[in-house]
Amino acid sequence: MNVGDKHYRTIWLAEDDSEIVQIIDQRLLPFEFVIEDLRTVSDVARSIFEMYVRGAGLIGATAGYGMYLAALRAPKDSIEGFEASMAHSAEQLLKTRPTAVNLRWAVERQRKAMNEGKTAEARVAIAQRVAGEIADEDAEFCRRIGEHGKAIIADLSDKKGGKPVNVLTHCNAGWLAFVDYGTATSPIYAAHDAGIPVHVWVDETRPWNQGARLTAWELGQHGVPHTVIADNAGGHLMQHGEVDMVITGTDRTTFTGDVANKIGTYLKALAAKDNAVPFYVALPSSTFDWTITDGVAQIPIEERGGDEVTTARGLHGGEIVSVQITPANSNAANYAFDVTPARLVTSLITERGVCSASREGVLGLFPEKQSVVP
Amino acid sequence: MNVGDKHYRTIWLAEDDSEIVQIIDQRLLPFEFVIEDLRTVSDVARSIFEMYVRGAGLIGATAGYGMYLAALRAPKDSIEGFEASMAHSAEQLLKTRPTAVNLRWAVERQRKAMNEGKTAEARVAIAQRVAGEIADEDAEFCRRIGEHGKAIIADLSDKKGGKPVNVLTHCNAGWLAFVDYGTATSPIYAAHDAGIPVHVWVDETRPWNQGARLTAWELGQHGVPHTVIADNAGGHLMQHGEVDMVITGTDRTTFTGDVANKIGTYLKALAAKDNAVPFYVALPSSTFDWTITDGVAQIPIEERGGDEVTTARGLHGGEIVSVQITPANSNAANYAFDVTPARLVTSLITERGVCSASREGVLGLFPEKQSVVP
Repeated sequence: MNVGDKHYRTIWLAEDDSEIVQIIDQRLLPFEFVIEDLRTVSDVARSIFEMYVRGAGLIGATAGYGMYLAALRAPKDSIEGFEASMAHSAEQLLKTRPTAVNLRWAVERQRKAMNEGKTAEARVAIAQRVAGEIADEDAEFCRRIGEHGKAIIADLSDKKGGKPVNVLTHCNAGWLAFVDYGTATSPIYAAHDAGIPVHVWVDETRPWNQGARLTAWELGQHGVPHTVIADNAGGHLMQHGEVDMVITGTDRTTFTGDVANKIGTYLKALAAKDNAVPFYVALPSSTFDWTITDGVAQIPIEERGGDEVTTARGLHGGEIVSVQITPANSNAANYAFDVTPARLVTSLITERGVCSASREGVLGLFPEKQSVVP
Repeated sequence: MNVGDKHYRTIWLAEDDSEIVQIIDQRLLPFEFVIEDLRTVSDVARSIFEMYVRGAGLIGATAGYGMYLAALRAPKDSIEGFEASMAHSAEQLLKTRPTAVNLRWAVERQRKAMNEGKTAEARVAIAQRVAGEIADEDAEFCRRIGEHGKAIIADLSDKKGGKPVNVLTHCNAGWLAFVDYGTATSPIYAAHDAGIPVHVWVDETRPWNQGARLTAWELGQHGVPHTVIADNAGGHLMQHGEVDMVITGTDRTTFTGDVANKIGTYLKALAAKDNAVPFYVALPSSTFDWTITDGVAQIPIEERGGDEVTTARGLHGGEIVSVQITPANSNAANYAFDVTPARLVTSLITERGVCSASREGVLGLFPEKQSVVP
């Protein structure tokens, strides 16, 4: 999407040097826009581990380019030496975020594809092509999600006689988390670019403030009208007719429609249900979990350090600093995700189309999975 | 309640000089514990306006003491001169927080009581007595709320075989908002002091962080086990059986049981209902609105400046500073309260006892209001 007047993806090859991968250092957003050059697989591993980049789609794409940079620098005198080096690089990448499904998927896709090359040089060429394919596919799936979701926004816009459609979103399922477009934001960008008036309520998303920092920034850069609110405010807005629809992303969704997403999503889904506001979840099909049926009981929830809760990070006197907001002796707990039961979800928006959040709905769009699910 | 080993109220006459009123500067909590001397009605007006003190009960008590200090310093040579000065002081106090119901109530109670005095000196004595009475009544009503609520916690404790009862609270309806005990916290303190094991989940309560700053501090000082959580986390905790009850305070409750309270309360009430967790609201009867029947439609919701949402305040390098957490160009909206419909409230806990959140329940406890309600 656009940053100022220029279109960006979240990862790309340098224009004048195809041996350099470039990314945005997201740790500094929204305060500074800094592009980082990655030249080695170690650069890539650090950028994932230290969260220069984050988000399922973008982590996968970054790992794909990481394998390409590894191949570029690997010894080329024997195929065995080359492969030993690649195996080491793959391990290095996999260690950075051990629970990131897309990371493992991208690394394995690269290794499998590269095995088709007869020489080390051929394998480098394959790695470059596949890295591009992974990124392009991610962007294309998000673009399709946007098209399907745009139809929903267009309908609401018609019903409102063209008055702005108010969309509430939680966390950042934006283009910054993918290669382009995002998932939850993709229908918003598609509608906005098509001239349909939209306005976005951006949940701050404590404790890490992905909404206040990242979603607000990317919407602002692309010119989408938006308002940041405390996570506490969404229910009040829905009670008073100020929200026409909710769209969120998801970190994992069971094929039965239970949605794991950033902590607090469940509260917004409850409020949407209580006020008859439609609640949509946008996801590429890679996010489905085809193995479990009860999200609340079966999806493990990461518990992170309490320091994210006891502090807030922001700009003070031109510097990015953390402030302590709680008493020195108070403990804090930090659950990263919650699970919204399928009964609260109006529909899922995938790259193949829109379906109900149910076994029937999901398998209707993905019939090839019928034989693998429990 | 206790601060360290010493018992405090939130307002009192200096031990060695009954012409000095002392308060805690709550703007500095939880980072510094500073006691301020108030010597004149102007000191009192500033302490209310600049929010050294806040909370319905404490604002009322402070205004009561403000009238006493005004009387002390008013000219005594004629009753007319004395009263002209008192009228001026009353106006000065009323201007500080124009929507605070208890402020007006305390000022009017003082003026009416003082009229009974024949001389200026007699009126000063009355003002001192009534200021003490207002504070004592506030504390006594909160104490009774604690006794009634303690019975509910004791029941839950029995059902759990003495394992800690997990109470979730939102915002600060603690002793800092009243003269002592608080409302939502009073049952917690009563249970804790009676040896019933309790643990409190403290909602951070963005944007102003009354939970993270004030509730966490007062619970910690009194020795009550507690854990600060993001406002987003409560639903997840309830889904997993980690919350036995919710108690909040209220800024205004209709006699039909609709509860206006700090923004976000409604979301927690929805989650409590969805998980069969009892949801209690603790209030002195002065908080009832006997004139309206539909809280969601009829209670106006204050909208405050967006800067509370775009910033966070805390300690950095030993200083209390604000950090900017949003992009410079993003707007923010800041709704201070929401309304929880009566259907989501298990019971109200008042100084007279516990009742259902309904016309029948409330009028059952306060039958003298039967003739005034619509």
